[in-house]
Amino acid sequence: MGEKKMKEVKEITNMEVDFAQWFTDVCKKAELIDYSSIRGLFIYRPYGYAIWENIQGLMDAEFKKTGHENVYLPMLIPESLLQKEKDHVEGFAPECAWVTYGGSDELEERYCIRPTSETLFCDHYKDIIHSYKDLPKLYNQWCSVLRWEKSSRPFLRHREFLWQEGHTMHETPEEAIEETRRMLDVYADFCENVLAMPVVKGIKTDKEKFNGAEETYTVECMMHDRKALQAGTSHYFGDGFAKAFDIQFTGRDNKLHYPHQTSWGVSTRLIGGIIMTHGDNNGLILPPRIAPIQVIIVPVAQHKEGVIDAAYGLEERLKAAGIRTKTDVSDHSFGWKAAEYEMKGVPVRVEIGPKDMEKGVCCICSRDTGEKTEVPLENLEKAVEETLDRIHDNLYKRALENREKHTKVCKTAEEVKDFIENEGGFAKTMWCENVECEEKMKEIAGVTSRCMPLVGEAVSDTCVCCGKPAKRLIYWGVAY
Amino acid sequence: MGEKKMKEVKEITNMEVDFAQWFTDVCKKAELIDYSSIRGLFIYRPYGYAIWENIQGLMDAEFKKTGHENVYLPMLIPESLLQKEKDHVEGFAPECAWVTYGGSDELEERYCIRPTSETLFCDHYKDIIHSYKDLPKLYNQWCSVLRWEKSSRPFLRHREFLWQEGHTMHETPEEAIEETRRMLDVYADFCENVLAMPVVKGIKTDKEKFNGAEETYTVECMMHDRKALQAGTSHYFGDGFAKAFDIQFTGRDNKLHYPHQTSWGVSTRLIGGIIMTHGDNNGLILPPRIAPIQVIIVPVAQHKEGVIDAAYGLEERLKAAGIRTKTDVSDHSFGWKAAEYEMKGVPVRVEIGPKDMEKGVCCICSRDTGEKTEVPLENLEKAVEETLDRIHDNLYKRALENREKHTKVCKTAEEVKDFIENEGGFAKTMWCENVECEEKMKEIAGVTSRCMPLVGEAVSDTCVCCGKPAKRLIYWGVAY
Repeated sequence: MGEKKMKEVKEITNMEVDFAQWFTDVCKKAELIDYSSIRGLFIYRPYGYAIWENIQGLMDAEFKKTGHENVYLPMLIPESLLQKEKDHVEGFAPECAWVTYGGSDELEERYCIRPTSETLFCDHYKDIIHSYKDLPKLYNQWCSVLRWEKSSRPFLRHREFLWQEGHTMHETPEEAIEETRRMLDVYADFCENVLAMPVVKGIKTDKEKFNGAEETYTVECMMHDRKALQAGTSHYFGDGFAKAFDIQFTGRDNKLHYPHQTSWGVSTRLIGGIIMTHGDNNGLILPPRIAPIQVIIVPVAQHKEGVIDAAYGLEERLKAAGIRTKTDVSDHSFGWKAAEYEMKGVPVRVEIGPKDMEKGVCCICSRDTGEKTEVPLENLEKAVEETLDRIHDNLYKRALENREKHTKVCKTAEEVKDFIENEGGFAKTMWCENVECEEKMKEIAGVTSRCMPLVGEAVSDTCVCCGKPAKRLIYWGVAY
Repeated sequence: MGEKKMKEVKEITNMEVDFAQWFTDVCKKAELIDYSSIRGLFIYRPYGYAIWENIQGLMDAEFKKTGHENVYLPMLIPESLLQKEKDHVEGFAPECAWVTYGGSDELEERYCIRPTSETLFCDHYKDIIHSYKDLPKLYNQWCSVLRWEKSSRPFLRHREFLWQEGHTMHETPEEAIEETRRMLDVYADFCENVLAMPVVKGIKTDKEKFNGAEETYTVECMMHDRKALQAGTSHYFGDGFAKAFDIQFTGRDNKLHYPHQTSWGVSTRLIGGIIMTHGDNNGLILPPRIAPIQVIIVPVAQHKEGVIDAAYGLEERLKAAGIRTKTDVSDHSFGWKAAEYEMKGVPVRVEIGPKDMEKGVCCICSRDTGEKTEVPLENLEKAVEETLDRIHDNLYKRALENREKHTKVCKTAEEVKDFIENEGGFAKTMWCENVECEEKMKEIAGVTSRCMPLVGEAVSDTCVCCGKPAKRLIYWGVAY
């Protein structure tokens, strides 16, 4: 019933017909995001922003557990500061937005709006790092950044987007690398245990790594349409920036040393990942642990005496159990409400009406499977908690099955091409580590390297492209 | 002992000698903030940012309780959008930072970095408000804004600062005015009950109100040096912006109407207010409810067996009781530690050493009075909680006494001038409501109008400036 009504109210494109349009429809109809008057800059609406707030809250707690402190640095970078690290400026300068006037005065030096803040953090570290006793510095910043890209898509590619950027400095390379990998694990655990998005953890090739980094680690996810999404990255910089910015500390040996640096970030792109991993043709499906509304209570025949009170009674009990709950007693029809909260991806709908009240039960409906269960009222909290956990597990399992089904071991570039054209997914191959082969794979099969996984067995002896002896296992795919 | 040691380690200017320098010293030495390479843009360091996070957390809960939702709108405003409301653009255009290039391309239209977001919210409201059923819209945004001012001071006047801006739309003027005053009350309660800063609630004169507003409400605080700080403002806009942006809705009468608007904001300037209200010659004194560290545990003779374990034991107990606690077992001297946490304004220091352990006690020291109390270990949590509350009450009481002592009823402009020059504080007078008198008060006595208080009896029949019949009670002062 709900399903039919929805199609009248909020029609969305079928995801099998046009996945891109389905995605845009969900973003708009679930009221996550809206376009602003500047192309590429988006409005995060209350429901979309609430998802981000939940991500922020849980992730920030993990950062603090691992010893990080939050700071806030300026949003503007003087051009001369950006230019200090050569690889970094080459990568970012072409997509900077430049401030040239303050009021009616032309500025002596132009400033870019931060596309990322390595240079600003280094400029600050220079003033506060003097001794090994000042290390490590474990800082994080929640902010928005701006990259003047040509194309844009809600959540996936914004000119302005919200993110966190961790920036840390360490006494030794070993400690910095350990930090880089620790934060990769934080991201991987978060994606899997909170967002129900299985990840492949790996290292980026030199071609795909961050501008100025020695090593970039990544967590890669497969979307429902079998394309790849880079969900988070963690970079090891060595002492390159430290040298460029002349940051030195007196070590335990009483000599001067350059500290070793990391940075790591995730952004609101994760919300795009959630939509494309879990959603279906009725709209969004939110992983329970970050859903702004975990349970929507919809009264049945709410004009009947006592129904609304009974619904609010359930709400009160669920809230007391720490479950984010809302009751909709608006004068929309039951069908409209069912469809509306399906579109918004609310994990659990609880229905209660006069007949349920007589029997001392309510009905629990799961968003992922559509399954309905009658539950004795005294078991409400426990049943809802179990259902939320079951939904999380099921979403994770479905996504993992999708990835496993569409990951294929390939031996030649032609095989990769066929796989990508006819099926799509991750092509798992060996590689000789030459960038020429990496570029050729793009030409032949239209893929980019996703990562060299941290765990995984060799699948052959020869490079997928040139046929020479292979060095690394590598995943290829078409990425967002 | 602590005090002496501190002077060796971290000398700060005496506040009676040079209050401005004392303020800057505290900001730097308590490690709240640092200068960046662009004048007027500051670095919020971990300890300063943690205060803001605590303010955010508690205030955001109040916003949500009063029905508001968070959103995030773009940081850039096209010049044409900014120009839609005449008074607004006149006020803000002179202090906008302008983006003119995206990458290497000159933009067709220049964009300013938001100095405030009324225009962006209106541009969005236009798309989402159609019927009275869409009202009220109760939105809030946490973000940074940029105003290209000539002078700057830590926390008090930044070119870029962190704030929240509430933006709401209502069906009727009455509802909008009610919202404006509701949020003023939220600010006033927050200042008094959380920050221990007593406020005067009032309305700004036409001269001092926000660009584009019909009415601006304010909470004004008196600092230790008797100058005024505007701590938060709440604006009623009528339907001026709605008309400029052509936002209309179908009312209950089935006719088109313009909605009525409010906005309201507080910023990291509140932290400046905290410093200047409560601090002393040993440094910062933080109101307990927003202190990042509420209790610092300093072991005495920590090399003696069992002392460090005992200290950690107390930390565990206090944390379990929900008190933000840290133990300093570094190899700095006891005196250094005592001075360091005095400088950082930690409300309570708990000392424990071998003698205390033998007696089954610890020592609780209050930052505000320097008072030390011996407390049986079994009473620890209760004693600390009571001490934190007592400190809050005492900070509030001291600040209120300072304000009452330095608020003076004046009958003439000359009297105001003498009062401001020789003593300083709030001059409480009557006013005829003519802007000429307001301007003259600035010339004669060097004061600006702070507000027309919402409560208060007439103190005479004639205007303090022109001597003609008076209409309003008004406060004057020298403001930050």
